Amino acid sequence: MTYQEAARVKTVADLRAAIRDGAFTGHTAGLAPGKLQCNIAILSAEHAIDFLRFCLRNPKPCPIVGIAETGDPALPTLGPDIDIRHDLPRYRLYREGRFVEEVTDIAAHWRDDMVSVALGCSFTFERALMAAGIPMRHVEQDLTVPMYRTNLPLVSGGPFGGTMVVSMRPLRGQDVPRAVEICARYPLAHGAPVHVGDPGAIGIAALQRPDWGDPVPVTADEVPVFWACGVTSQNALLSAGIPLVITHAPGHMLISDIDETAETPIWKP
Amino acid sequence: MTYQEAARVKTVADLRAAIRDGAFTGHTAGLAPGKLQCNIAILSAEHAIDFLRFCLRNPKPCPIVGIAETGDPALPTLGPDIDIRHDLPRYRLYREGRFVEEVTDIAAHWRDDMVSVALGCSFTFERALMAAGIPMRHVEQDLTVPMYRTNLPLVSGGPFGGTMVVSMRPLRGQDVPRAVEICARYPLAHGAPVHVGDPGAIGIAALQRPDWGDPVPVTADEVPVFWACGVTSQNALLSAGIPLVITHAPGHMLISDIDETAETPIWKP
Repeated sequence: MTYQEAARVKTVADLRAAIRDGAFTGHTAGLAPGKLQCNIAILSAEHAIDFLRFCLRNPKPCPIVGIAETGDPALPTLGPDIDIRHDLPRYRLYREGRFVEEVTDIAAHWRDDMVSVALGCSFTFERALMAAGIPMRHVEQDLTVPMYRTNLPLVSGGPFGGTMVVSMRPLRGQDVPRAVEICARYPLAHGAPVHVGDPGAIGIAALQRPDWGDPVPVTADEVPVFWACGVTSQNALLSAGIPLVITHAPGHMLISDIDETAETPIWKP
Repeated sequence: MTYQEAARVKTVADLRAAIRDGAFTGHTAGLAPGKLQCNIAILSAEHAIDFLRFCLRNPKPCPIVGIAETGDPALPTLGPDIDIRHDLPRYRLYREGRFVEEVTDIAAHWRDDMVSVALGCSFTFERALMAAGIPMRHVEQDLTVPMYRTNLPLVSGGPFGGTMVVSMRPLRGQDVPRAVEICARYPLAHGAPVHVGDPGAIGIAALQRPDWGDPVPVTADEVPVFWACGVTSQNALLSAGIPLVITHAPGHMLISDIDETAETPIWKP
C-alpha cells in the first residue's frame, strides 16, 4: 500500500489493520488527521519504573500518553484492539544501546516482561499550526524535521538522563507569538517551544548540520524556533545501554483512536 | 504555630522548616499562595509501577506532579531540600487497607523500598477561581469541600481501580462557563469539571450527605459542579489492601516551590 493509498483509508481501524497485516509499512505523518499519534518505547519491567520517572520529570520532551500492563501488547486507553507487536509500520531494535535492526513486526521479539510506553508527538502541534495558517517548511519540502542535541540538562531518573534533543522549525517573526500560544494548548505534544532564536545559546553549533533529520533553510525574515523532541527519550534509552529496547522507527508512529484535541488521552468505548 | 502565624511566614523554605520541625501541624489550605500544593502517596516499589499506571490512566482525578527515587525521601523536582519524612504537617498510615494512625512525622516508618508520588490538588484551581471573582462557598464558610463516591468508572492499573471520587462546589449558572474555561488551564490540578447539575446522573444519592467533608448548601440560583478529586487515589490505594500506604492527612498537603502557573511542575535552581 502506498502512502497515497493509506491517506485514503477511511477509518483508524482500517488503517491500523493495514499496518497490522504488513500491507502498509511507510511513515505516518499526515495520516489519520486529527488522531493522536504516539512515540513508542518498549522495555523490560525492570527498567520501566525508572523510565517513567525520567519521563515524568521531563514532561516537555517526554509526555506520557499511555502505558501497558507488563507483558500485555494491548494499549486499551489509546484505542480498542491495539496490539503493539504488529500495529506500528516499522520498529527499531536496540541491544545494549546499539542499533540492531529495523523490522515491521516484533511478535518474534516479544517477551512477558515487556512494558510499552506511549509518548505524545510533534505531529499534533504541527497540524494545529498549519490549520492556523502557519506554514511548516519541512512539510512543504517533504523533508524530515531537523533535530539537534542541546546543552539543556534533563532531570535524571535511574540510568536515564542526559541533555534534551530539540526539533527546529523556521517561523516568520510575526507568527512566533501565536505559534507559542497554540502549542501551549498541547502539553501532551511537547507544549510551547523551549527556545527561540540563537542556536548557540542552547549548544547547537551549526543549524545546517542537524544531528537527525534534514537541514531546513531559515530565511532572513524568519527565526529558528526550537521544540522539545521525542527523540530525547530514545537518546536516553540508548545511552543507558539497557539490554533491549524497541522503539518506533522515526516517523513510523502508533496511530491511536484519541482525538488530538481531547482533554485526556483516554479512549472511551 | 497557629494557622494565622503560618499564613504570615514569608517564604516556602521557612514554612516547610516550621512544618519539618513540628512547629506547624495544621491544614495548608490558603498557605503559601501561588505555590503548588500536592497530595502525597507513599507505597512500596513493588506496587509503585501499578499505581503510576493507574494514575496515568486516570489523569483527571490523579495528575502526577512528582515522583521520588525508591527509598529516597527527597523530591527534588518539587523543591530543594524536601524531605517527605518530615515535610507534611500530618500523615495517615494505612495497613492492609485499614486506617492505623495519624502522625506528624514518618521517619520511624520509613523504609528503603518506599516510593513517594505527588499528585496535583484542588487548591490550585480554587485559588484561580476566587482570583477571577468566582466565590467558593466552603472556603467562605470555613468548611471542608464535600466529596462523593460516584458511578464514574476508572481505568484499572494492577490492583488499583474502582470508581471516581468527586468534589462539589455550587456555582451561579452565569459563572459555570468561565469556571470551566479557567479550570481547563490546570490539567495538573484536576482540569475542567467532570459533571454539572444532576447529582443522580453520576450516582450521588444525596448532595447533603457527602461521603467525605462537610455538606454545603446549593441555593436556587446555583448549580452543583463536580470536579475529579484526589481522594480517588487514596480510595484506590485503600481498596487494593496493600500492606502499607502512607498519605497526607486530608488538607495537610506538601507545599512545593513550584508556581501554580508553571508550564511544568519541575523546579529549577
